[in-house]
Amino acid sequence: MNYPEPIAKLIDSFMKLPGIGIKSATRLAFYTINMNDDDVSIFSKALMDAKRKLHFCSICGNITEDDPCEICQDKDRDQTKVLVVEQPKDLVSMENMHEYTGLYHVLHGVLSPVEGKGPEDINISGLVKRLQKHPEIKEVIIATNANPEGEATAMYLSKLIKPAGIKVTRLAHGLSVGSDIDYADEMTLIKAIEGRTEM
Amino acid sequence: MNYPEPIAKLIDSFMKLPGIGIKSATRLAFYTINMNDDDVSIFSKALMDAKRKLHFCSICGNITEDDPCEICQDKDRDQTKVLVVEQPKDLVSMENMHEYTGLYHVLHGVLSPVEGKGPEDINISGLVKRLQKHPEIKEVIIATNANPEGEATAMYLSKLIKPAGIKVTRLAHGLSVGSDIDYADEMTLIKAIEGRTEM
Repeated sequence: MNYPEPIAKLIDSFMKLPGIGIKSATRLAFYTINMNDDDVSIFSKALMDAKRKLHFCSICGNITEDDPCEICQDKDRDQTKVLVVEQPKDLVSMENMHEYTGLYHVLHGVLSPVEGKGPEDINISGLVKRLQKHPEIKEVIIATNANPEGEATAMYLSKLIKPAGIKVTRLAHGLSVGSDIDYADEMTLIKAIEGRTEM
Repeated sequence: MNYPEPIAKLIDSFMKLPGIGIKSATRLAFYTINMNDDDVSIFSKALMDAKRKLHFCSICGNITEDDPCEICQDKDRDQTKVLVVEQPKDLVSMENMHEYTGLYHVLHGVLSPVEGKGPEDINISGLVKRLQKHPEIKEVIIATNANPEGEATAMYLSKLIKPAGIKVTRLAHGLSVGSDIDYADEMTLIKAIEGRTEM
C-alpha cells in the first residue's frame, strides 16, 4: 500500500526541492493538506506566477518583472560603477545596506572546475559586451563569495577586464563587525592583517 | 529594496511550511524559478489536487479520495481488530509491513496538556461510536508513539474502552532489531527487561 495518488504526487514534487528527502517531503505534504484552503491556493498560484512573470534583466541578469529591471532603468544611479554578484539574492543583500548607488551585474554562478562550470556557463560574456557598449563604466567591483570558487572567478574577471583600462576592485576581507578574534579562522586573520588600515 | 513581488509571495508561501525560515524559503523560491516549467506546473497542480481531492474517511479518519476508504471497504480484512494510530503516515508504515490485516483508526493527534489538546480535540469520540456500532470488534491495538504524550493517550484510551469488555493491547517496547545494547537509552532497556519473553 502507498499513499493516495494526490498526496503521493505532492510528496514527489516536494522531493524535487533541494535538501528535502522523503521524510521531510512527507511531513510537508501532510502539513499542506491540513493548511487552510486560501493558503494552499495562494501557494499554488505563487508557484505559477513566479515562474511565468519573472525574467532575467537583459542588461544585468537580475530577476525582474520588467525588462530592463528597475535598477538598470534608474538614471539617478551612478552609471560609472558595476558591482558583480553571483546570485540575485546577493544583489538584494547589497541593496538592503542602502549605501551603494551604482549598477549591478549578476553572474548566475561561479567558475567551478569541480562542477564543470567554465566562463561560458555563467553571465561573463554579457558583462564584457556591456563594458564595451558603455564606456562610462569606470569601475567594476567584484563581490563574489569569499570561497575558492568566488576567488577564482574574481581573479578571472580581473584579468579579463583590467586590460581595457577599467578599474577592478574586490570587497575587503577581514573580521566581521562585532566578532571575536579567537573565533576567527586563520585565513580570515591572514586577510585581516594583509588588509590592515592606518588609524 | 525588496524582491520582485512574485518571488516575495513565493517566499511567503514557503515560510508558512513548518521548519522553513526566511533563508530556506528564499533558497527554495530561487531554486523553483530555475526549475523547468513542467515541474513547476505539476507542483502547483499537486498542491491544489491534494487539497481538493483528499478527505478524511468518515469511518476511520484515514486520508482518502473515496469515502469510506479502501481499507474500511475491504470486507476481506479482519473486522475484529482496530489498530489506533496518531497520524495517517503511521497507518502507511503499518501497511508497508504487510503483516497486519485488521482495520485502523486515525486519531489525528495525541492528548497533550502542554499544547492544550484534550480528548475532544482528537478523533476519540469517533472511535467510541464505532466500537458501539460494531460489536464484532474484539480488540483495539494502540499504536501511538512511544513518548509521554503517546503513552498518556494509550492509557486514556485503555481506561475508556476496557470497561466495554473489549481487549486493549499496546505495541511492545524493547530493543530495535539489529541495535546494540550499549546504544539503547535507559527507558528502552527498562521496557525491554519488563517485557522479556521466555525462550
